[in-house]
Amino acid sequence: MEAMLQQSRAMCPFLKRTAPSTLRTLSTATRPSAGGGTMSNLQVLARRCPVMSKALAVQSARMCGAKRFTSSAAGVPKPFRAPTEKRSLHTTGGHPASVAPGSYEKNEQVHPNLARPLRPSPDAEAAVHAQHPGAEAPTTRFDYNAFYDGELQKKHKDKSYRYFNNINRLAKEFPRAHTASAEERVTVWCSNDYLGMGRNRHVLESMHRTLDTYGAGAGGTRNISGHNKHAVHLEDTLAKLHGKEAALVFSSCFVANDATLATLGSKLPDCVILSDSLNHASMIQGIRHSQAKKMVFKHNDLQDLETKLASLPLHVPKIIAFESVYSMCGSIAPIEKICDLAEKYGAITFLDEVHAVGMYGPHGAGVAEHLDYDVYASQDTATPRSTKGTVMDRIDIITGTLGKAYGCVGGYIAASANMVDTIRSLAPGFIFTTSLPPATMAGADTAIQYQSQHPRDRVLQQLHTRAVKSALKDLDIPVIPNPSHIVPLLVGDAEVAKQASDKLLEEHGIYVQAINYPTVPRGEERLRITPTPGHTKELRDHLVQAVQAVWNDLGIKRASDWQSLGGFVGVGVEGAEDANQPIWEDSQLGLNPVEPLEGAIARELEAEATDFQASQPAAIPHLKTGAPKGTRAYSTIAAPVGVVA
Amino acid sequence: MEAMLQQSRAMCPFLKRTAPSTLRTLSTATRPSAGGGTMSNLQVLARRCPVMSKALAVQSARMCGAKRFTSSAAGVPKPFRAPTEKRSLHTTGGHPASVAPGSYEKNEQVHPNLARPLRPSPDAEAAVHAQHPGAEAPTTRFDYNAFYDGELQKKHKDKSYRYFNNINRLAKEFPRAHTASAEERVTVWCSNDYLGMGRNRHVLESMHRTLDTYGAGAGGTRNISGHNKHAVHLEDTLAKLHGKEAALVFSSCFVANDATLATLGSKLPDCVILSDSLNHASMIQGIRHSQAKKMVFKHNDLQDLETKLASLPLHVPKIIAFESVYSMCGSIAPIEKICDLAEKYGAITFLDEVHAVGMYGPHGAGVAEHLDYDVYASQDTATPRSTKGTVMDRIDIITGTLGKAYGCVGGYIAASANMVDTIRSLAPGFIFTTSLPPATMAGADTAIQYQSQHPRDRVLQQLHTRAVKSALKDLDIPVIPNPSHIVPLLVGDAEVAKQASDKLLEEHGIYVQAINYPTVPRGEERLRITPTPGHTKELRDHLVQAVQAVWNDLGIKRASDWQSLGGFVGVGVEGAEDANQPIWEDSQLGLNPVEPLEGAIARELEAEATDFQASQPAAIPHLKTGAPKGTRAYSTIAAPVGVVA
Repeated sequence: MEAMLQQSRAMCPFLKRTAPSTLRTLSTATRPSAGGGTMSNLQVLARRCPVMSKALAVQSARMCGAKRFTSSAAGVPKPFRAPTEKRSLHTTGGHPASVAPGSYEKNEQVHPNLARPLRPSPDAEAAVHAQHPGAEAPTTRFDYNAFYDGELQKKHKDKSYRYFNNINRLAKEFPRAHTASAEERVTVWCSNDYLGMGRNRHVLESMHRTLDTYGAGAGGTRNISGHNKHAVHLEDTLAKLHGKEAALVFSSCFVANDATLATLGSKLPDCVILSDSLNHASMIQGIRHSQAKKMVFKHNDLQDLETKLASLPLHVPKIIAFESVYSMCGSIAPIEKICDLAEKYGAITFLDEVHAVGMYGPHGAGVAEHLDYDVYASQDTATPRSTKGTVMDRIDIITGTLGKAYGCVGGYIAASANMVDTIRSLAPGFIFTTSLPPATMAGADTAIQYQSQHPRDRVLQQLHTRAVKSALKDLDIPVIPNPSHIVPLLVGDAEVAKQASDKLLEEHGIYVQAINYPTVPRGEERLRITPTPGHTKELRDHLVQAVQAVWNDLGIKRASDWQSLGGFVGVGVEGAEDANQPIWEDSQLGLNPVEPLEGAIARELEAEATDFQASQPAAIPHLKTGAPKGTRAYSTIAAPVGVVA
Repeated sequence: MEAMLQQSRAMCPFLKRTAPSTLRTLSTATRPSAGGGTMSNLQVLARRCPVMSKALAVQSARMCGAKRFTSSAAGVPKPFRAPTEKRSLHTTGGHPASVAPGSYEKNEQVHPNLARPLRPSPDAEAAVHAQHPGAEAPTTRFDYNAFYDGELQKKHKDKSYRYFNNINRLAKEFPRAHTASAEERVTVWCSNDYLGMGRNRHVLESMHRTLDTYGAGAGGTRNISGHNKHAVHLEDTLAKLHGKEAALVFSSCFVANDATLATLGSKLPDCVILSDSLNHASMIQGIRHSQAKKMVFKHNDLQDLETKLASLPLHVPKIIAFESVYSMCGSIAPIEKICDLAEKYGAITFLDEVHAVGMYGPHGAGVAEHLDYDVYASQDTATPRSTKGTVMDRIDIITGTLGKAYGCVGGYIAASANMVDTIRSLAPGFIFTTSLPPATMAGADTAIQYQSQHPRDRVLQQLHTRAVKSALKDLDIPVIPNPSHIVPLLVGDAEVAKQASDKLLEEHGIYVQAINYPTVPRGEERLRITPTPGHTKELRDHLVQAVQAVWNDLGIKRASDWQSLGGFVGVGVEGAEDANQPIWEDSQLGLNPVEPLEGAIARELEAEATDFQASQPAAIPHLKTGAPKGTRAYSTIAAPVGVVA
């Protein structure tokens, strides 16, 4: 064994740097081997290494005859290859279909776990060794249940275990919901149905009609009986919304991001993906799955991005993957400058507008549209016409969701026709899955078209956001400064954040979910508030009082406390407020210096109510039940206190 | 350069086996390097190798000073690590949140492309070199559009480019649909809405009601405002259906399979996943994403599976991943025997029942339930109670879809409470995505409960399947033999399969999609027919005549032709029919030796019509429009011929 260790160290540059004591442990601890004997943990690891496994095979061949060892050296038998004769009934692995036409050209058969840590995790060891006290080789089965238990215990221990709140949002009482009890009411302050489109009567009417005519589900993948006019129309609407040649709809934007980045990154030769450090899990996963090179640049840091771009050869394909609005802190990317860098260094841009579509721009096409507000506002078409040289035009790939501001479910990409067709043709996550239901696609289509022509919802949402941020800041509540519609309140502790959320729900009838690791980094735990057009003054006042009470009760740090500590994630940081002026400017919101904010809100709500009444159809059957009661778009009921036991 | 080549060959076991001419080309062709000079393609490749890159770094350090080279040797800069001071506003990559709490513990930063082919693909080279004729180093940007073009050209060239058919299934004329023109009617013969539940009036009524009360979308992830009573009820129904402690709903079963296998395979220490060679793309993807060891066993081959299981140490965690009904050939796994092997070798079983739920078993719980038909049929509860020792009880993880026999959309897993909670807590594809809409979950819940209590749909589906298979076989049409509800017709050529599908649609008004690579292996192209309870005699007769005509027109091989060639995938293989007796036995279908098949079908249809009339509610508003016209469950209209231009 010592001889093998010496030999291994001579060959392996990684092993050379491993402490001798670790190597000794690895080479003396043994496990039963496939052949019936035992092998050292070092041998187990060596078999996984593409270099060492070959070396071991050669060594072993010298010792005990080449043929026997060669077959076992790889650890995993080679895939069966059928001889040239015809296959009989499905009993061979002759030439199985691959996931996609070459979209992943990696070795399918055996993935050497190169990236695994050298030692199994403590929990894993516990699961195996629970049954094997002492140093004997384990001879019994793996304890799967102990393993699951261990994983869950870890989550409980670090306070990252999630308890789901049963919240049933009521279409007719928006933004109110009932809890597990149908009688108990709470006000929802953390939904991503930012504009209340999930209860918009046009959307519901469109869905009811489509359900009746075309049924509940699509009945197949897009290729096999799941392609229909709803998909055609929706993708057409999405392409036009973003001023692109084409669009493609997926089950969700998680799938859209994952599938698109995984496919592009694996197919583009030597592709490098430059990823913002705060990118969403779906992009991180897509990049990992692509197995492309990944370079993480500091959040919204153009200098760091440029340094990384400049380090790569010009001709190498590169994707800059980033978001417009970052969901958990509300920051907004310097999109235009990122486009400049992309052009300079020969990269394409992949922009996730998930939290921005429906919310920004004169047509709701997102922040990219908003950055050329006047250009697009001057167009009187239902959807914007792409205008050469605008920021939206310069972005190569835009991804978005139908499940947040558009109130439904699903995700999409919009880009050039060739690019979209490539993903359509190659991405397993698109090809091999059932299409979204016709009614979902029809409802989303209606929502996009409605928002494209009715900016008032997003204007009201922005006005409510300003009012909430302002009222909380006046009370020294630590609002993380940002230019968007997100209102993140810094708590800084997982357990306290959960307590604050529970107190708001149980004592004040207000639902704001605590956001803990892994959604945000540890130490940055927060409450994330998302106002909607329906969060009228009564509801806002109630929220602000409740937050104040909870902050007092739990002794949570105030903005001034963070400031005295030198500031943190923008809270109590000098100049952070000035650097985060709202992207919706006063003039775009119809605000003027003499009118108070609440006056402007009242004016918009009044106009909305008038429009709502005027457009209330009388004869569409489903609207009788589908539309909210009364004649106002948003109710002005006062929020009750402490309704949830 | 020659010196480096010599040195490289001495170090690298892979390079040793590469032809000298290839090595010479690689080491003389150059590219511009990050530092401004050039480097050989061999150097580019070497930098990707974990062993060679270190060696190069050492060599280079000797030549030109360690510090400079070390930073560039890795090719990609290290992620920025914030110093210990407090972070200011979102401008550092200090401690970004990870995708999931340690669900992937691999190195996030740089994925060395170990599995990449040594040479870039011809298309990739074309995209780069289109702009660089001759041997000069490329100095311009990558041509992304040329790359997309190249990928699409490949698809056109090998006939795997997909053209989607615009097919709009009509709830009130099931199984009929209109094409892009609302007036043109076709009969759909390839939908996976196997039981027509997408237009079931109970399902639609439930969805209408939920839409009205709870709106279009869920408005958030399960953790952030997207958890509600619909999710609770649906998961409860699913757990009971499969006799498991818990269930978890995902956006689709593609996501369920991908996320579950990726999470388990990456977390279980040294996990090995044994995968059937015909497994669905979602499982292949999940296994790849797990980076666990994968062993592919021959389709439904117990001996091969056992050989592979026996080659692994008993204590190592193993997952046997397989399907009950294989979608494209209709074969059914030997589930019970696989459970035996799993127990013997300490593995857990992961069974995909996507094409079986709703279709098999007295309650529609799938093939696993069907294998203990009498045990579960004797239970008079709405959903089966798990019975110790039955096949369904012995399976560890069952996955299924809400988008096929249940007529909606979405997927799920059902397993022990601990196992499900582990996936709930760790899988990014579950955590970071918007929940399914309340109406979708309510509709699916209703569909499952309906099918659990109404076996007639699946009985009728099986009777229609038998009738179609029998009529086609009588005409020497090559039906791939199988014991399930799938009717695959072997064509064996991608272009001819597409022609046959087009002819059926254009000349006969029948929609059956051609199934080509990559969904099936090349050479096994087929038409895949899926009868439903609504495919009454008139429609079946029309299908059979149309298939006969198309087979004649295109001169497609008959079953006897395949037989004279020795047989292929079961067609024309002696004994294949006998080995593939229907899993729904005659007695389970109410068939008896004296009654002809069509008589039994007529009897079932009559009973269905009587039930349908009796249960027709008068006062539920949506049913007035939601229910099919007339008083019969299934229409008996004759199919028109050649309606599509």
